[in-house]
Amino acid sequence: MASATYCLKLTYDGRNFSGYQVQPMKRTVQGEVEEILSLLFKKKIILQASGRTDAGVHARGQIIAFHEEAILPPEKLCYALNRLLPRDIKVLDCQYEAKDFHPRFDAIAKMYRYRISYSDALFERPYTLSLSKPVNLEKMKEAFPLLEGERDFYNFSNRRRQEGSTCRHLYRIYLEEKEKGFDLLFLGNGFLYKMVRILVAYLLEIGYGKIEPEATLSIFQERDRKYTRKVAAPQGLYLEKVYYNPVELQEDLMRFVNPSH
Amino acid sequence: MASATYCLKLTYDGRNFSGYQVQPMKRTVQGEVEEILSLLFKKKIILQASGRTDAGVHARGQIIAFHEEAILPPEKLCYALNRLLPRDIKVLDCQYEAKDFHPRFDAIAKMYRYRISYSDALFERPYTLSLSKPVNLEKMKEAFPLLEGERDFYNFSNRRRQEGSTCRHLYRIYLEEKEKGFDLLFLGNGFLYKMVRILVAYLLEIGYGKIEPEATLSIFQERDRKYTRKVAAPQGLYLEKVYYNPVELQEDLMRFVNPSH
Repeated sequence: MASATYCLKLTYDGRNFSGYQVQPMKRTVQGEVEEILSLLFKKKIILQASGRTDAGVHARGQIIAFHEEAILPPEKLCYALNRLLPRDIKVLDCQYEAKDFHPRFDAIAKMYRYRISYSDALFERPYTLSLSKPVNLEKMKEAFPLLEGERDFYNFSNRRRQEGSTCRHLYRIYLEEKEKGFDLLFLGNGFLYKMVRILVAYLLEIGYGKIEPEATLSIFQERDRKYTRKVAAPQGLYLEKVYYNPVELQEDLMRFVNPSH
Repeated sequence: MASATYCLKLTYDGRNFSGYQVQPMKRTVQGEVEEILSLLFKKKIILQASGRTDAGVHARGQIIAFHEEAILPPEKLCYALNRLLPRDIKVLDCQYEAKDFHPRFDAIAKMYRYRISYSDALFERPYTLSLSKPVNLEKMKEAFPLLEGERDFYNFSNRRRQEGSTCRHLYRIYLEEKEKGFDLLFLGNGFLYKMVRILVAYLLEIGYGKIEPEATLSIFQERDRKYTRKVAAPQGLYLEKVYYNPVELQEDLMRFVNPSH
């Protein structure tokens, strides 16, 4: 039987997971999916993913892949997985990819969503960050162009050791107003550890008037994290989309343009 | 210090609880609330409730009470509880009640909501029953008047032993259409164990054309559960409201009237 690379698009509710990546004795997304795949293929399957997500963080478009004998057509695998997986993980799509496809190394960009709500509705608590007082959205938007672009995001990560470059290209921050709150979208060629949650916390400080948008420039100039120590709660964060196709990325860059720009 | 009866209105997300009632080694709503109250009052507090809810069942208006020295004003207790309780329980209201108030024995009626969705959106899964094919709502509504009224609901419960009457007054079943599904509201003077979930499963059988609405009459006549063995999943069910005030009950009876009646 010929071998194949299976590529899956997952959505999961991060609430009851200790994050994406396998850890001993913990309930993880990778652990749950590998367990069911290993049953179906009757051997240990190890997954590759576009990246990890932390405990409590959700995904609406996580991409995972594995190489295996092509004994199950993708549509049958999708069906079987959705019957066997726990109810907080769902396969949205399953297809064969090129043999050498790698969900992390081949990704050209990612989009994250961060949900913020002004209500403290109990049933929304695991899925949004709840704010007790309104923020100044216009002030926040003033900071977007100062954060966007190819920059060294060292101060917007909580990375300790030096492991490669901390430069990333943040293509777009986009604000979507909702009935009782707003979402922040972050589209970039890559993100450092906790970068999105630190950006959200920073933008909220601006929205509350504690930091002026113009301060952003000096934060990039100094290697000082005094304004960027806060990390927004995990439950508001969603890995929304992983891009492998430049055309799709281009379309979304055209789509998510703030009116103020 | 004078003693008082504290009365609390709770909402909780039943997803991660083994039901309302305390059980050894299980995470329960009663267990979590009693633990925090016992810390605040520096002695073991035992709660009374309007009734239990099963594992996975939610509440948007559970009423609980306890008698204790009036050392904390209700508004302060409410604030302290909401800071100390886990994030899947929230106190909506707290007040003093009459000394002899009992949340179960004084209740004159209850309302339950059951949420049904045609989508299988992952983030809705713990909060609705998802249907893969549409049901005939008009057929279902034809059965409402045949179920409403003062009746012996023995066949609509899974009670085994005889413990008092199985007669209840089901005042109203009400259907609220939603964008991608519908809610069923049940308002009655009391409900037998699993009665609402069995009624929902039964109404869905009617909506799917497997049972004719007229069959309802014969189900009440025979002591036979062959049409009422199914129980709808717990995650769609919400204890919506407990009534202690006849005026409030009357208002809701006027409010929830199906157009077809």
